[in-house]
Amino acid sequence: MSTSERMISGKEVAKHNSRESCWIIVHGKVYDVTDFLDDHPGGSKIILKYAGKDATEEYDPIHPPDAITTHLKPEQQLGSVDLNTVEKVEVTISDAEKARQERLNQRPSLDEILNLHDFETIAKLVLTEKAWAYYSSAADDEITNRENHAAYHRIWFRPRILRDVTAVDYSTTILGCPSSMPVYISATALGKLGHPDGELNLTRAAAKHGVIQMIPTLASYGFDEIRDAAAPGQNQFLQLYVNKDKAITKRIVQHAEERGIKGLFITVDAPQLGRREKDMRQKFDAEDPDNVSSSGQSGNVDRSQGAARAISSFIDPGLNWNDLKWFQSITKMPIILKGVQCYEDALEAYDQGCQGVVLSNHGGRQLEFARSGIEVLVEVVTKFKELRDITFPNEKFQLFVDGGVRRATDVLKAVALGATAVGVGRPFIYAFSSYGYEGVSKALQILKDEFEMNMRLLGARNLKEVVPEMVDAHNIHQHVVAVPGDRLYDSNYESMQTARLKEVKAKL
Amino acid sequence: MSTSERMISGKEVAKHNSRESCWIIVHGKVYDVTDFLDDHPGGSKIILKYAGKDATEEYDPIHPPDAITTHLKPEQQLGSVDLNTVEKVEVTISDAEKARQERLNQRPSLDEILNLHDFETIAKLVLTEKAWAYYSSAADDEITNRENHAAYHRIWFRPRILRDVTAVDYSTTILGCPSSMPVYISATALGKLGHPDGELNLTRAAAKHGVIQMIPTLASYGFDEIRDAAAPGQNQFLQLYVNKDKAITKRIVQHAEERGIKGLFITVDAPQLGRREKDMRQKFDAEDPDNVSSSGQSGNVDRSQGAARAISSFIDPGLNWNDLKWFQSITKMPIILKGVQCYEDALEAYDQGCQGVVLSNHGGRQLEFARSGIEVLVEVVTKFKELRDITFPNEKFQLFVDGGVRRATDVLKAVALGATAVGVGRPFIYAFSSYGYEGVSKALQILKDEFEMNMRLLGARNLKEVVPEMVDAHNIHQHVVAVPGDRLYDSNYESMQTARLKEVKAKL
Amino acid sequence: MSTSERMISGKEVAKHNSRESCWIIVHGKVYDVTDFLDDHPGGSKIILKYAGKDATEEYDPIHPPDAITTHLKPEQQLGSVDLNTVEKVEVTISDAEKARQERLNQRPSLDEILNLHDFETIAKLVLTEKAWAYYSSAADDEITNRENHAAYHRIWFRPRILRDVTAVDYSTTILGCPSSMPVYISATALGKLGHPDGELNLTRAAAKHGVIQMIPTLASYGFDEIRDAAAPGQNQFLQLYVNKDKAITKRIVQHAEERGIKGLFITVDAPQLGRREKDMRQKFDAEDPDNVSSSGQSGNVDRSQGAARAISSFIDPGLNWNDLKWFQSITKMPIILKGVQCYEDALEAYDQGCQGVVLSNHGGRQLEFARSGIEVLVEVVTKFKELRDITFPNEKFQLFVDGGVRRATDVLKAVALGATAVGVGRPFIYAFSSYGYEGVSKALQILKDEFEMNMRLLGARNLKEVVPEMVDAHNIHQHVVAVPGDRLYDSNYESMQTARLKEVKAKL
Amino acid sequence: MSTSERMISGKEVAKHNSRESCWIIVHGKVYDVTDFLDDHPGGSKIILKYAGKDATEEYDPIHPPDAITTHLKPEQQLGSVDLNTVEKVEVTISDAEKARQERLNQRPSLDEILNLHDFETIAKLVLTEKAWAYYSSAADDEITNRENHAAYHRIWFRPRILRDVTAVDYSTTILGCPSSMPVYISATALGKLGHPDGELNLTRAAAKHGVIQMIPTLASYGFDEIRDAAAPGQNQFLQLYVNKDKAITKRIVQHAEERGIKGLFITVDAPQLGRREKDMRQKFDAEDPDNVSSSGQSGNVDRSQGAARAISSFIDPGLNWNDLKWFQSITKMPIILKGVQCYEDALEAYDQGCQGVVLSNHGGRQLEFARSGIEVLVEVVTKFKELRDITFPNEKFQLFVDGGVRRATDVLKAVALGATAVGVGRPFIYAFSSYGYEGVSKALQILKDEFEMNMRLLGARNLKEVVPEMVDAHNIHQHVVAVPGDRLYDSNYESMQTARLKEVKAKL
Repeated sequence: MSTSERMISGKEVAKHNSRESCWIIVHGKVYDVTDFLDDHPGGSKIILKYAGKDATEEYDPIHPPDAITTHLKPEQQLGSVDLNTVEKVEVTISDAEKARQERLNQRPSLDEILNLHDFETIAKLVLTEKAWAYYSSAADDEITNRENHAAYHRIWFRPRILRDVTAVDYSTTILGCPSSMPVYISATALGKLGHPDGELNLTRAAAKHGVIQMIPTLASYGFDEIRDAAAPGQNQFLQLYVNKDKAITKRIVQHAEERGIKGLFITVDAPQLGRREKDMRQKFDAEDPDNVSSSGQSGNVDRSQGAARAISSFIDPGLNWNDLKWFQSITKMPIILKGVQCYEDALEAYDQGCQGVVLSNHGGRQLEFARSGIEVLVEVVTKFKELRDITFPNEKFQLFVDGGVRRATDVLKAVALGATAVGVGRPFIYAFSSYGYEGVSKALQILKDEFEMNMRLLGARNLKEVVPEMVDAHNIHQHVVAVPGDRLYDSNYESMQTARLKEVKAKL
Repeated sequence: MSTSERMISGKEVAKHNSRESCWIIVHGKVYDVTDFLDDHPGGSKIILKYAGKDATEEYDPIHPPDAITTHLKPEQQLGSVDLNTVEKVEVTISDAEKARQERLNQRPSLDEILNLHDFETIAKLVLTEKAWAYYSSAADDEITNRENHAAYHRIWFRPRILRDVTAVDYSTTILGCPSSMPVYISATALGKLGHPDGELNLTRAAAKHGVIQMIPTLASYGFDEIRDAAAPGQNQFLQLYVNKDKAITKRIVQHAEERGIKGLFITVDAPQLGRREKDMRQKFDAEDPDNVSSSGQSGNVDRSQGAARAISSFIDPGLNWNDLKWFQSITKMPIILKGVQCYEDALEAYDQGCQGVVLSNHGGRQLEFARSGIEVLVEVVTKFKELRDITFPNEKFQLFVDGGVRRATDVLKAVALGATAVGVGRPFIYAFSSYGYEGVSKALQILKDEFEMNMRLLGARNLKEVVPEMVDAHNIHQHVVAVPGDRLYDSNYESMQTARLKEVKAKL
Repeated sequence: MSTSERMISGKEVAKHNSRESCWIIVHGKVYDVTDFLDDHPGGSKIILKYAGKDATEEYDPIHPPDAITTHLKPEQQLGSVDLNTVEKVEVTISDAEKARQERLNQRPSLDEILNLHDFETIAKLVLTEKAWAYYSSAADDEITNRENHAAYHRIWFRPRILRDVTAVDYSTTILGCPSSMPVYISATALGKLGHPDGELNLTRAAAKHGVIQMIPTLASYGFDEIRDAAAPGQNQFLQLYVNKDKAITKRIVQHAEERGIKGLFITVDAPQLGRREKDMRQKFDAEDPDNVSSSGQSGNVDRSQGAARAISSFIDPGLNWNDLKWFQSITKMPIILKGVQCYEDALEAYDQGCQGVVLSNHGGRQLEFARSGIEVLVEVVTKFKELRDITFPNEKFQLFVDGGVRRATDVLKAVALGATAVGVGRPFIYAFSSYGYEGVSKALQILKDEFEMNMRLLGARNLKEVVPEMVDAHNIHQHVVAVPGDRLYDSNYESMQTARLKEVKAKL
Repeated sequence: MSTSERMISGKEVAKHNSRESCWIIVHGKVYDVTDFLDDHPGGSKIILKYAGKDATEEYDPIHPPDAITTHLKPEQQLGSVDLNTVEKVEVTISDAEKARQERLNQRPSLDEILNLHDFETIAKLVLTEKAWAYYSSAADDEITNRENHAAYHRIWFRPRILRDVTAVDYSTTILGCPSSMPVYISATALGKLGHPDGELNLTRAAAKHGVIQMIPTLASYGFDEIRDAAAPGQNQFLQLYVNKDKAITKRIVQHAEERGIKGLFITVDAPQLGRREKDMRQKFDAEDPDNVSSSGQSGNVDRSQGAARAISSFIDPGLNWNDLKWFQSITKMPIILKGVQCYEDALEAYDQGCQGVVLSNHGGRQLEFARSGIEVLVEVVTKFKELRDITFPNEKFQLFVDGGVRRATDVLKAVALGATAVGVGRPFIYAFSSYGYEGVSKALQILKDEFEMNMRLLGARNLKEVVPEMVDAHNIHQHVVAVPGDRLYDSNYESMQTARLKEVKAKL
């Protein structure tokens, strides 16, 4: 990981500007990426554009801080450069980029943002295509991705009336840490893709609103930068992709504990990162067509994997239950398995001494046709009662769900069914992508407003009063697919029409 | 509530025409609203437009009669003005408004209105945007709003044949009052938004057709104006939002009883009025963009709440079961709880001596994912039989439902399942918004025609013969959500085509 | 029914050409319709167009032969006219009509008609708007109309293999009459609206293909004309709307029996004919807007009833089970009740000695939310087994269904579930509307081809081998309504896209 | 089958260029097709275009090699021609064909093909209309065709975590033959329609990727040509349509066994080939309109049957269980029945000594409303356990399914439920139609990549670990049809809208 301290001039770097010898500058360091060109998951073209030049601005938002040092051998890390000697890269702004910048200027006032959906609408308009593809994409046909949201529509409320709801309190405690609401900011990667302040937007808004941020392994900012951005006493969790190199993992975990992290969420649903075809397709759309062989044959390297897989080759597919004891031996932080998808594994986690599980399918980005977390929650709660006589919510073994949440009503359904709290990811990304820190702050405020109102309407004064009887979830396990339509019949059927204005009729 | 009787000249008022000192005239009274500008739920801009002028025309349709006196302190209520001394406000009519007026002229003849849907179509075309947003909007994603109608589609008929249906009688008795059909006009707010005669349209049509109108707390006309408009012997109910000030509530209730009101419907599903985003969004669309800070930050007052919440701050969120006894002590009117949504609360209402409940989710305007009234009806009837051995319809404890009704068939389903009558709200608003009193009268006539025909087709000569066996409601509790579609597969699938004309084929 | 034999000159008739005195000629007879103008269900305008003239061409397709004599008093039936003295009405052909005629010329060859859907497509293009509205319309929101077809999609096949299906035989016997397939031509009214030969097209094609036609009460041709058109030995049934005047009914029934009719199908689902709004709306669209009062008020006569109700005022809403004995006393024909919609009434019909029932909702044209015939069939068969230990198909008490059938597979599902045969109505109307007799013949041939193939694929050599085990109908009673969609979420979700051609990508 | 060896000059052939005497040349042989013109399923026009000329290029892709000799009598097979004496047919390329060729040039690089859907998208663009219609079409309304894919959406995963999935192995053994994955290339007809190398593309790609190809009876290439194209040791299966002539069938089967075929898949779901209306309609669209009688009457020969039925008249509809013993007597190859659709027939096959069954509905091309193979699999496995106490997968009696598969996840669902392997047909056709051999190879590589990833995500290291508990298929038998929509209500409902850019709002 160490880099040579040789000092190199910008002039010298500038000579290595070809496929034959390709050096680039990132954050003031010089790297020889000649041999890496064909292995770059994002293709060689984008690197060659910066051959002999400073690639920092391009590099930054789409790579975790240590990506380049991880992929290059020590001898390819040539030394430092005096940035004053480096010629600026002339940036030409494409028409598409100009249009995007114009849309940024046209963002509506934050006052007009009424719900979390609105952030997504604006983010889709103001994000770069690359960022939108990375953030929004999911596995295969993205059915699980959408099911995550749809599953909440199978749960309906049974509200109670005539309770004095003058004061409602939706605060709670998560793994011993107070939270202003039963929501935490889930870990999501590559925050700089959406905003220069990336994950720090989340840290600051979490502080303001008293919620807990889960710091991602694949953040655009380094762990310490994010931890440093926390307010005094602000609690954070850590999401961990387990590195094949145990030593690295140990160092990360123990460092996190030292820095006061309050919970270790080990991702267990991603031995390999999913194929996210929107992300992959975006890459091809951005690719130079000249670079493609006329035979229709692919080159010798499969570059069709999108951003997600490009940054995740270090993840250990061999991670297994035996490793859990090792984790327990190196840290006293509560250990939560993130990505549990059936009751059997939740039981195992409980039996092996975990402090909780996140029932999650990774935002629909991993296994297509994995069930939604909220559906698995119902199964888990039922089976824990049946097999261990345990009820939820439960201080000692906490259940979390994530995926598809857009409204406080979604969260309240999960709470009624036994969840301690719910993780929300993409909506907060979309919030900072469109409005930075203030966007995230507004998103959290919207949730608070929704909690206040909906708890009143439910007849619950605090989260303890949000009980199973308040929801009807008996349809949760129904995976209904309509019989394909009879297109001939449908095309013949002429729709009913309502009354028409006279002038309209006159024109018919 | 009293206003000073000082007489002020129009000239004097006209001086106070700025943000620094802003007086307005409403119904011949002068108010100093300078301090109120930033608190006005509808924003300051609309008030400033009338600074120093007569705002009555703008004020009237969107405020209950006493809104201004409720919000201003006594010293801000300055006195009366001689209207002859007031300069008329020059009204400039926007292009959009001209187009709307033109559409009003193009309304089809009432003869062409075939069903209640038609009124909605026309109303959407001839209402102001503000009125349409307020009337049509509902909570959050408006899923419960639409579910209210959709739920009726899960109930199918089992009609009987070969009964002599020469004469059919669909009249009934509601809380002891005769009604020409098992339908009453439910309470809805702000009638003047749709038509200058507002709620009086309903009063007059109810008289003509022998149905009962429920007078809303938030009517555009005062309670006495509406009661005075009733024909001799015409029965009316009162819908009550309970004021935090018990004295006010008591005065309202006892005054209603004195004026001959036959039933008190206490709204219990609205400790806080719902967020209706269409309504809120409309407000922003009408707002002056210059008034919005360039930072995207909101001002110090949250004005994003739409008409509904603007007019409802007086409602008591502390209302609870203990208050019920108090109501029973101050009135002999039958007390019905409006907004019950599960059997437990219906049982409680029964046990505590209420005369009935309205199974309702407030037209989908309060708690999103509340179940439809018709679904709750099935649950309530089942549980009353099981737990109290009571069957419905029942004179002593009457069940009502509202929400989503558009056809007499919908009503007959509710009656078959045990309802005494069904409340219909929005369709009558749309009727008077498009055709005034005659619209409501036509709407009621359409329902009567539908009742006559459909009772014949059901084989029922009177409502007693509309029995549970006539409906198949076994699917009522199914909240089915289809698995999200496979968009790639679907985009590849080429639809079947039917035969084509020769000329069409020739062009292909 | 008798008309005065006075002979009147065309010149005399021509004088009565105004609203004050309006005579018209139909089939050489002169009628004074002055007093009838405001009662005409089709409006006065269309009559006044022919005031003093010969209205036969306009009258013919939309009235049963005796409509005019039924509605007028004897003294209004003035006598005969010498047609040579009558001036021809100048017919101006509208642009819409010219376009329709052009479409008629552009009909594809019958070879290109591959299925029954195709006839509907062509008919929609070549029928007059009036005819299309009358034929295609159904009750209220036309949900039952479409459910009739959709219900078949809830039934799936369990075919058998490795049976020698070299020869397959799909002939059967209906009420003792041989039929080449388990299908009969159901009664539908006003055939001349679609084709000058009207119902006779059906008679002739039925003869050719060995199927049975059910003659409708409301045919455009008289009963005897249709019976006369039958080939020697050709069997026909009679559909009966029961007239309030028992004597008329008796005469019709006994005349039919004398003429060799083999089955009497008494319609029991239409004490009043349904509101079919497409039909009603079409009438208004055709109406002169000048004729509508500017106040939006309707006139003193409700003319908004469409063709269906215009022609059915004679139907007896008092018909009941007691009348059944009377029918049994006046005829020996098998009596089948058409329009039974629950097992209770089917049992009653059986117990009272009927020979069968048609499980039907009148093509969705009567009670909205009536269940489909095929769904009721499953209920009836189950309950007859349970309560009477009777199985189907059954010679002594035959079950028929109609509604929504478009394919032989639909019919085979009904047969497997216990039906003796299935009635098909609209598809044959569409067939003759687009291609006359040859269209109907082709439609029948298509069904035969489909029967042959699908019985082979089912592994059934004859209809006896089409057994209940060959279908899976366990979903038949599911009336599923999807939870209303989350439009905000859906509008944000960006669909997956497949690969694109290079040129397409280049344009993006 | 033998042809006369007479040598004929091109000049002589050229004289017979009319309807009166029509000779054509195919593969150097001369045929007198005068009497066959009216019987040609593809119509006479296309033959007359080549009257007196060489028709080989037109003939080849749409006929199995021996089609012409099968249909003509020996005396109509006139002899050989010296091709040097034959004038070349001038080929005029239509605009549509030019556009198609242009689209071929614009195919994206194979690198951009991310999934099997992509091949279909490209194939739809680059295939001739005729080929697309033949390949993509299915029976009747194509509901079963689409249900095949949709049924997989009713099955969801229950993945396991924390298993060491560093190495995953998805290889298996099918009828004793090793296969790199639980997928085989199913038999599909007329490969040359899509690519000159037709089925050979499949053979070569199967060799490269270690999967098994099932050779179709109706291949464009002869059986031996395909067998010869196999690599040393490459295993293949044979799909058999049983010829009415037992001697032919015997010769085919025994020849296949001699050539080393490892499994005989007898098609049992096609006693008659299905009506595929897209295919039929395409034929009419290509037909000369002048050739159609103006009366709309069809000619004396029904030519409306499409390619499928044109080539299948030899199939024996009398095939039955008794023939099975005969097959067992003439070959030692494992015998698998292809097209079993209920447990009763699967049991029968087992009891009669078959080695397996393919649960299939022939890609939706035969009986409409046949259930999907994956649904039947659940039934079969359940009933075998119940009635024979046999579990699956099972070496001695193997279950296969086909239809609707597009992803490795689909296959893994089938494997979890008991299938040994899954047949994939159309996707491979689309792969070679768009990219030839390399397309098929890429398609197989995509599946391998998907298997690797999804087994990791499932927590299964080999196929034995893909167990029933890993799927939730409890909805598999649900054939849900939504209640038809209320079009009036829906047209009135105004969708929610998200936030808008300022400029957009300004334009409203």
